[in-house]
Amino acid sequence: MATAQLTTDRLAEKHRSTLDQALATIRTRAYWSPYPEHPKAYGTDGSLDAAAGLAAHQSTLNTRFDLDQPGTDGWTGGETSPYGPSLGIEYPHADLDVLLPAMRAGMGAWRDAGAETRALVCLEILARISARTHEFAHAVMHTSGQAFMMAFQAGGPHAQDRGLEAVAYAYEEQTRTPAGRAGWSKPQGKRDPLELSKEFTPVGRGIALVIGCNTFPTWNGYPGLFASLATGNPVVVKPHPRAVLPLALTVRVAREVLAEAGFDPNLVTLAVERPGEGIAKTLAVRPEIRIIDYTGSTAFGDWLEANARQAQVYTEKAGVNTVVVDSTDDYKGMLANLAFSLSLYSGQMCTTPQNLLIPRDGITTDQGPKSYDEVVADLAAAVGGLLGDDARANGLLGALVNPDVKARLEAAAGLGEVALASREVVNPEYPDAVVRTPVIVKLDGSKPDAQAAYFSECFGPVSFAVSVDSTADALELLRRTVREKGAMTVGAYTTSADTERAVEEVCLEESAQLSLNLTGGVYVNQTAAFSDFHGSGGNPAANAALCDGAFVSNRFRVVEVRRQA
Amino acid sequence: MATAQLTTDRLAEKHRSTLDQALATIRTRAYWSPYPEHPKAYGTDGSLDAAAGLAAHQSTLNTRFDLDQPGTDGWTGGETSPYGPSLGIEYPHADLDVLLPAMRAGMGAWRDAGAETRALVCLEILARISARTHEFAHAVMHTSGQAFMMAFQAGGPHAQDRGLEAVAYAYEEQTRTPAGRAGWSKPQGKRDPLELSKEFTPVGRGIALVIGCNTFPTWNGYPGLFASLATGNPVVVKPHPRAVLPLALTVRVAREVLAEAGFDPNLVTLAVERPGEGIAKTLAVRPEIRIIDYTGSTAFGDWLEANARQAQVYTEKAGVNTVVVDSTDDYKGMLANLAFSLSLYSGQMCTTPQNLLIPRDGITTDQGPKSYDEVVADLAAAVGGLLGDDARANGLLGALVNPDVKARLEAAAGLGEVALASREVVNPEYPDAVVRTPVIVKLDGSKPDAQAAYFSECFGPVSFAVSVDSTADALELLRRTVREKGAMTVGAYTTSADTERAVEEVCLEESAQLSLNLTGGVYVNQTAAFSDFHGSGGNPAANAALCDGAFVSNRFRVVEVRRQA
Repeated sequence: MATAQLTTDRLAEKHRSTLDQALATIRTRAYWSPYPEHPKAYGTDGSLDAAAGLAAHQSTLNTRFDLDQPGTDGWTGGETSPYGPSLGIEYPHADLDVLLPAMRAGMGAWRDAGAETRALVCLEILARISARTHEFAHAVMHTSGQAFMMAFQAGGPHAQDRGLEAVAYAYEEQTRTPAGRAGWSKPQGKRDPLELSKEFTPVGRGIALVIGCNTFPTWNGYPGLFASLATGNPVVVKPHPRAVLPLALTVRVAREVLAEAGFDPNLVTLAVERPGEGIAKTLAVRPEIRIIDYTGSTAFGDWLEANARQAQVYTEKAGVNTVVVDSTDDYKGMLANLAFSLSLYSGQMCTTPQNLLIPRDGITTDQGPKSYDEVVADLAAAVGGLLGDDARANGLLGALVNPDVKARLEAAAGLGEVALASREVVNPEYPDAVVRTPVIVKLDGSKPDAQAAYFSECFGPVSFAVSVDSTADALELLRRTVREKGAMTVGAYTTSADTERAVEEVCLEESAQLSLNLTGGVYVNQTAAFSDFHGSGGNPAANAALCDGAFVSNRFRVVEVRRQA
Repeated sequence: MATAQLTTDRLAEKHRSTLDQALATIRTRAYWSPYPEHPKAYGTDGSLDAAAGLAAHQSTLNTRFDLDQPGTDGWTGGETSPYGPSLGIEYPHADLDVLLPAMRAGMGAWRDAGAETRALVCLEILARISARTHEFAHAVMHTSGQAFMMAFQAGGPHAQDRGLEAVAYAYEEQTRTPAGRAGWSKPQGKRDPLELSKEFTPVGRGIALVIGCNTFPTWNGYPGLFASLATGNPVVVKPHPRAVLPLALTVRVAREVLAEAGFDPNLVTLAVERPGEGIAKTLAVRPEIRIIDYTGSTAFGDWLEANARQAQVYTEKAGVNTVVVDSTDDYKGMLANLAFSLSLYSGQMCTTPQNLLIPRDGITTDQGPKSYDEVVADLAAAVGGLLGDDARANGLLGALVNPDVKARLEAAAGLGEVALASREVVNPEYPDAVVRTPVIVKLDGSKPDAQAAYFSECFGPVSFAVSVDSTADALELLRRTVREKGAMTVGAYTTSADTERAVEEVCLEESAQLSLNLTGGVYVNQTAAFSDFHGSGGNPAANAALCDGAFVSNRFRVVEVRRQA
């Protein structure tokens, strides 16, 4: 590394304090982030401001995105923005028989660099991504359909937070054993003690595969990417064909930093598929692939878990998220909070509530008792009010990510009595964008045909106001839903200590993350890195949580060399 | 817990300092153990001395071993000591449809007790087992066939160490997040900060299954048992039908302690099978079983990994252990060390070397160059000398654990030129014991028919002196063996820094634990808890290592409850 521009000393000077703060925060779970959320915070210290970010994005459109990877045997790509325009970018297509062996070449030096240097290199990658957050925001917006502000925050600093969090966990896990040789001396009574010298080296498992998703390419992609890289594994990124650009930019930055730090840039590569090629399946069962991170459909997640037996497989699949509405002392706050949760990114988050369980006899509130019909009507009015202004609606909803979501939304109106109809919103800047407000459908929880609707995931801006016999009935339905369908989030509103305790018990027993009585500016569908766990890894919605020890500890093994002292 | 005899305060007074020392030692990897290795250390502080331990063991023989478990629908058992006598003990047979639901009943209180109380209860169980080490030694001896001293140490303090180590890892892992509620406050510029109160609870996954082995029922059983129990899971122990007693005693102690501490004793139960019943397969795929720990054959381990998809599966299977002999500056020490490794417990350890790779042109030593034939003859002489005295041979070898081992030993002599023939040793105390010294067979590594022998596991007192073209050839064969067959241990002797580096590189790349130039009183087949890793979890011999973060971190999940502050 003598000739590297980025020495470990230089990297430590820049990033060691950030790493230390991350290590402290994953223990306290307090609020912290090193990456600014405000667009105006960028433009100094070499970071791109709004205009420069937009210009950088535009200069990438309609070009060939070269990465100088081994085994490039053609070019592919056909992303079209959910806002309308085609991106016109071509990405390298890889011959896996050339690419994968080339990725292993740098693994020994990456291992020998040690946990700290690997962490610091990862932090430099994140810092450079952070500096280009404005550019990434456009890339995320025009692949996911998120509105700009959300693409900026969730696709930028929040994704970078999740990446940094994974690096911190990975570093902590690898440094549990002493670096360098440790002495070991076992007393033998009057005889000389037995003495050995022992050395412990964290070693990566092999090539890691990140399978990206359409809706949150960076936020869902970074934890696995950085956890694997920080634990010594090369990483091949297979983006969703509709959301290549944000991860292609990420891979490019990673390769630049690795090279500058004296490592093989092929430790991070991109594998984009030709239309219909299905390389995720091909890659997933290659013997070189030892780790897989996946976010997406339950069907393919289950397939990976069953078939990629040579790999450690971390999946975030789909669940059915529930909110139990029992009672509240802040009726307006509850309605406003729920309305926002249902509207944000047109409900296209894996954490968006789907089933609102409301007793058919109504609930008690600070504004007097409210019947089931009143609660549903008031919630519909709250959503309607929140999205009444088209400019604000566009800013919250973004665009529907693909035609399947639109089709589900349209079909949902036929499932029951529509309490709030979806309406089309025009986006003046992008007239081809498909923008829709959420639909709320009333269902009778006791009717078997209604169950077919609410007891499966309906991804998109669709929620069901399910009438139940009682809160006890709601809790039983909640339990069954989490156990059989999984849940990324559970919400509940109650003023009763007993009910609170009962819903907690269900969530503890079924391993679901619970938000209680949210009435302010935090929403059930949002989690903060370093503090909140995303998913639990203990119910069918996901087999892993972001981020915990289990997410990183099996990405490497510790090899011990012991010598006669 | 107010009425419990063992309050958390009392448990903390007794065991907190031991836990703290264990937590410190898994970081320093220094030598430490709270459980005495010397038989004479017992007999004070309520522990059983040699005579009392033997008497306790004898009082158990030819009795019905009642555990007062729910769902007992009959009695079964038919253990015969490898030393000859039938144990004559009957154990409860369980109706799983009654037993398993009963085991879940106490899970909530066990979860609510918290990580520290769970750890302290586990330490009390271990302390009571420790006090009865003399009794356990007889139980292990007369099920595994280990000689008494080995059964005492490996089945007693060393097994207890591994259990305590797992408790320490489990405690550390669960206390990464704050106990109790933690505040979270996110600044919002001029507006009020967003504030939440957050609570993190480690929750067990469900019932854990421990599938015991014949050779090391306690040593291989305790890590999984205590890791699962300490992380909040009930544990059902399914012992090997030939080695029930050591784990039945363990379950009885655990149930006593749980009850005294105010918990449901059914958090730990025993499931013994009727002859040929095969309940491991039945249990392994029951939906209630969420964790499985297994030690045994590769075939059944692979079956568990493929079929018990509802559970986290931790397996220690079989491998082919190699020693590379390149050169030495202590020829006598090397021969003595290897002779002991091959002889201990008649080679019936998953860590015993099988293939000794020796260059056909010989090696350099402090006693001059030694040809391949000389090295093999000298090793044969060293083993012969070590085991020349029948009393010492009996003390080292123990008895063959079952007829399969004897059959393999007898067949091995036909695989090549016998450098050291196995001989029958008479055990005057147990004339029916099958005691055999190891066989060493010479094989030409370049011959395809020889490969069929040395390239598969031959469990028992059989080793192959494999001639290779060169040390480089040996390293290539080592790499292929670890990659394709797995290895629990690798040994190497060399005076060359380059060769040392090369063998290290193979072990780092293939994830195998390496012992270099052992010539004293530490043997390649032994590992010390708190310091050495047993297996790596990164090659086909085992998917987990004893003990590391990955061994415990996925046995529980952290459920977060966040509330509007």
